[in-house]
Amino acid sequence: MFKKLISLDEAKQIIAKNISSRPVGKEIVQLKRVFNRILAEDLVSTLDVPPFDRSTVDGYTVKAADTFGADEDHPRALKLYGQVRIGESPKVSIKKGTTAEIVTGAPLPDGADAVVMGEYTFQKENTVWVLTSVSSGKNVMRAGSDIQKGETVLRNEQMLGPYEIGVLAALGITNVEVYKRPRIAILSTGAEIIEPGNPLPPGKIYDINAHALTAAVIECGGKPINLGIVEDESQTVETTLKKALSTADAVITSGGVSVGPTDIIPKILDKLGKPGVIIEGIAIKPGKPTTVALVDEKPVFSLPGHPTSALSIFQLLVRPLIVAWAKRPAEEPRMVSAITGSKLYAARGRRTFVTVHLTKDESGRYVATRVPLGLSGAITTLSKADGFIEIPETQQFIDEREDVIVHLYKPRLP
Amino acid sequence: MFKKLISLDEAKQIIAKNISSRPVGKEIVQLKRVFNRILAEDLVSTLDVPPFDRSTVDGYTVKAADTFGADEDHPRALKLYGQVRIGESPKVSIKKGTTAEIVTGAPLPDGADAVVMGEYTFQKENTVWVLTSVSSGKNVMRAGSDIQKGETVLRNEQMLGPYEIGVLAALGITNVEVYKRPRIAILSTGAEIIEPGNPLPPGKIYDINAHALTAAVIECGGKPINLGIVEDESQTVETTLKKALSTADAVITSGGVSVGPTDIIPKILDKLGKPGVIIEGIAIKPGKPTTVALVDEKPVFSLPGHPTSALSIFQLLVRPLIVAWAKRPAEEPRMVSAITGSKLYAARGRRTFVTVHLTKDESGRYVATRVPLGLSGAITTLSKADGFIEIPETQQFIDEREDVIVHLYKPRLP
Repeated sequence: MFKKLISLDEAKQIIAKNISSRPVGKEIVQLKRVFNRILAEDLVSTLDVPPFDRSTVDGYTVKAADTFGADEDHPRALKLYGQVRIGESPKVSIKKGTTAEIVTGAPLPDGADAVVMGEYTFQKENTVWVLTSVSSGKNVMRAGSDIQKGETVLRNEQMLGPYEIGVLAALGITNVEVYKRPRIAILSTGAEIIEPGNPLPPGKIYDINAHALTAAVIECGGKPINLGIVEDESQTVETTLKKALSTADAVITSGGVSVGPTDIIPKILDKLGKPGVIIEGIAIKPGKPTTVALVDEKPVFSLPGHPTSALSIFQLLVRPLIVAWAKRPAEEPRMVSAITGSKLYAARGRRTFVTVHLTKDESGRYVATRVPLGLSGAITTLSKADGFIEIPETQQFIDEREDVIVHLYKPRLP
Repeated sequence: MFKKLISLDEAKQIIAKNISSRPVGKEIVQLKRVFNRILAEDLVSTLDVPPFDRSTVDGYTVKAADTFGADEDHPRALKLYGQVRIGESPKVSIKKGTTAEIVTGAPLPDGADAVVMGEYTFQKENTVWVLTSVSSGKNVMRAGSDIQKGETVLRNEQMLGPYEIGVLAALGITNVEVYKRPRIAILSTGAEIIEPGNPLPPGKIYDINAHALTAAVIECGGKPINLGIVEDESQTVETTLKKALSTADAVITSGGVSVGPTDIIPKILDKLGKPGVIIEGIAIKPGKPTTVALVDEKPVFSLPGHPTSALSIFQLLVRPLIVAWAKRPAEEPRMVSAITGSKLYAARGRRTFVTVHLTKDESGRYVATRVPLGLSGAITTLSKADGFIEIPETQQFIDEREDVIVHLYKPRLP
């Protein structure tokens, strides 16, 4: 195994060629838990909605033909044969010259094809005088007018929001087949990191990455399994990775494991299964020490220890895969065009990401200004920044007031 | 109490005047559950991150002054005084003419102010030859360079995404004060509705609204309490509403409760507390039978039974309040401009919402075409539609190819 830095595009190509982007699977989820999930089947209605002709008003249900020619000067007398109640099968049927009282939402009885609103009638004992003419179907919602039996009402890959959940409920469906959320195991390594919540001993820092990456995995539709900090010892890391690979669809580690001067994670990954490491090192700043492996079909992403690097590489390389595995709609690369507020320098010979803050100038254009990041994972600064600009390996700088693409950290703009 | 239909704008004014939009409260949430919540405090760092000067490379830690003038032809000899390990307090201190081995991330020992990378050194027994000159601070990440003690790192009302969660972890914070998600009780009434999952008896339809509204409440940051279907009986509705008001911050009902020809929900609401009903009926199609009440400061929204009407009124009147109670960022009214694909007619004397589907014409403009809704709650159709156009009470129609505002049901566009 030899170590060779490759470009970001090469890394993307290697990932596209070696790592499957097929969904990880399907599962049945209860209606009440299905919000924001992705439907995994075309859904064909097994019933008419509504299942019967319904009155849309309070009034009297009639044969429309019995009312033809009726107006206030020429009312028609119909014999009242009881009442149709809501939520029940009608106990009457309407014959020529008869009617029944009906309320909004109640099913039309046999023989009836229209409803006359209460205000256009006059009832006296068992006779209802109809003061208007109605056509067949008037004030009636037909069976199947919302959804017809046999109709495809929802499609495979549709996201289930309030409206789609309404459709599922309308069909009486309580178990819904959706795509599984890919399970992503997350672990942090490094002898200097400890879990937040504990007092901070000398020489230690709190683990940031496992927490930030857990949130990032949720954000793009994955199901994080946060394994926390793994002891910085070769055998423990190997055991934890094995366990992670047996329960998760993919694994993300961050931080190196140093035994002497070298990171031993690539060695462990090569040992765990085939083909092992497929990417070791990317010519990116930040993010150089990124290792990608495939262990018996399961991908492992070993991200750098610096939080900014880890999150940037996650967004660029891992997030699109999780979105695909979850069968969520492909995300627009979240970018805006802007002009640079000052000259931006690249790191020599490496693709560089410059973190920027966006403002608007008088003409409404975005101006991207560099946010100084300091030497390392300045996560505070990153949380204030709006996005980043990529300077390719071949370019030494971007001049002031040049057009650039800004990759946004969040969809919302200032 | 007299019944008077008011306009949508009047309804909005009455709501703004009577119903508080203040957040419902604050609560402490664990770091691992805090994703997508809203921070309820300014957060001031109680520590430097990192808490100590760290080496950013593997090499030898030195007093920079000891290396001045060094190059390959003029190496400087330094006495090796042991090793600084990562994650531990340094056991050595660096005096003039001495050095110690150090790894990336390890704390700088007392007396040292720079690190020479391993490749610019040559070690022989207890002597390290330095082949380059380094300035003070070289290859060192200073204490507090990410976050300084006393610095305000996150602000009240900030949404907690991966980056913000990284900041919390960096500070060792595991309990976070966030705004409470408003608890919204949801119930459906109507003698004809039954819960999905049961067989459908004659005259019945499945409840749609409780399920669709539950999802809609989650979507805008509320915490739904789905009480399901309440028996269509005055005393049961009153008891359920009382219980809902005692546990939730607001209540949404849908469907009428008909005892004879009139809806009795307004009567019950007037009875439960002061001031009672503040809106009874809005001149909107769909959505006319909308009742809004305030029962001892707690709002109750009684939405129409038709799913399209219930969801439209929810989006227009209830959603902005839930967003405010949750202290989530005010949402952009989600609209686009379009031209009408055909003439659109309004319901006489009522503000009308026409559900439309959007396509793009050759010039890239959106064209809004009416989606026929049928007589009632065509929830399937609504799930296919992109949004709606509002026709004011005073207007009878909108002509073909007129400019209109389309209210989008979802942020994503075709």
